[in-house]
Amino acid sequence: MAKPLIQLALDSLDYDTTVSLAKVAHRYVDIIEIGTPCLKVNGLALVKDLKARFPTKKILVDLKTADAGYYEAEPFFKAGAAITTVLGASDLDTIKGVIAVANKYGAKAQVDLINVADKAGVARAAAAAGAHIIGIHTGIDQQIAGQTPFADLEALLALGLGTEVSVAGGIKPATVAQVVKAGATIIVVGGAITGAKDPSAAAAEIRKLVDEAAGA
Amino acid sequence: MAKPLIQLALDSLDYDTTVSLAKVAHRYVDIIEIGTPCLKVNGLALVKDLKARFPTKKILVDLKTADAGYYEAEPFFKAGAAITTVLGASDLDTIKGVIAVANKYGAKAQVDLINVADKAGVARAAAAAGAHIIGIHTGIDQQIAGQTPFADLEALLALGLGTEVSVAGGIKPATVAQVVKAGATIIVVGGAITGAKDPSAAAAEIRKLVDEAAGA
Repeated sequence: MAKPLIQLALDSLDYDTTVSLAKVAHRYVDIIEIGTPCLKVNGLALVKDLKARFPTKKILVDLKTADAGYYEAEPFFKAGAAITTVLGASDLDTIKGVIAVANKYGAKAQVDLINVADKAGVARAAAAAGAHIIGIHTGIDQQIAGQTPFADLEALLALGLGTEVSVAGGIKPATVAQVVKAGATIIVVGGAITGAKDPSAAAAEIRKLVDEAAGA
Repeated sequence: MAKPLIQLALDSLDYDTTVSLAKVAHRYVDIIEIGTPCLKVNGLALVKDLKARFPTKKILVDLKTADAGYYEAEPFFKAGAAITTVLGASDLDTIKGVIAVANKYGAKAQVDLINVADKAGVARAAAAAGAHIIGIHTGIDQQIAGQTPFADLEALLALGLGTEVSVAGGIKPATVAQVVKAGATIIVVGGAITGAKDPSAAAAEIRKLVDEAAGA
């Protein structure tokens, strides 16, 4: 089984807290994600700062773009983002714009299926348009209402679209092996690391569990 | 006819250009909108700066929130935003979160119907949840594909939901009277002002056309 990537989701609103968490946990993860609320508060400057501090890590900017795909994503790819996200709930032309500008910079567009009703239909259309990554994502507000991403992940993987598949939504040590074995290629962990008493130890544990589940 | 408000949409990515456009056009408009790409690049600092420079104007931050409604919107209301936007395509709990935090700060939540298939259903649910403003919005990528907001605006107004109604999507001098007469309470103008050779004169013209159409 190919070894999946671990993505650390940074969802603090505070600039310094975000940098501190990246400092202590980056060595155990492959992708550093600047979460949407964090990005909206701190802007492009934070993206540039994290890229400069962690040049070997992939930076994902969780733009959740909903319009003007090419225009909105370009400054972030220019600043070194490896991946930005676009909503599956947006117009297909918006998704195509993010794919086009990602390709221009040798980067990747991730289509986030959060709150999309017809996940299979949108995933197929996005994959056909050249999306690099499809993201199964149970949002924060949906997690609070008791939802999980596991069934949606299996349904997406069963489509066999050939894209990378990212999964996010409250993944923790008890559930990480399940999503690795299901076949996710990118596993997003946020609160289970950033909310831990010792975020570095929590990240190390996730790394160990992912590697074990992948048989690495 | 009640006099509608004019909202100036600032969609440059550049901080100084954004401030300059606000300086020359603010006297003719009621609401200064920080557009989504502009906000994502420049962050909360720009919101604070515009609020300090134009304390008598309402500031709309076009967050297009898609998750974690309360958490994401709160720092912007705290900084003085009068309105933030949340996607009609998001989970109803996300919409409710933005409404709750808007109410906490004596501000307003606008539900943006961009790319929502069942506009009437989402508008009814949002209004029932206490949304202050419903936004009809033909996105940039949809305008490029030839779409306009006029039919959707009339269909929304026909529902008689009792909320304020905002309309956006390529509105210009030739079409502004039409949306005033239809009954929109907030009229968003972007490129027709910011892309004009003389943005101040263009804003003055829009003001005159709106006031004439409203019989003010």
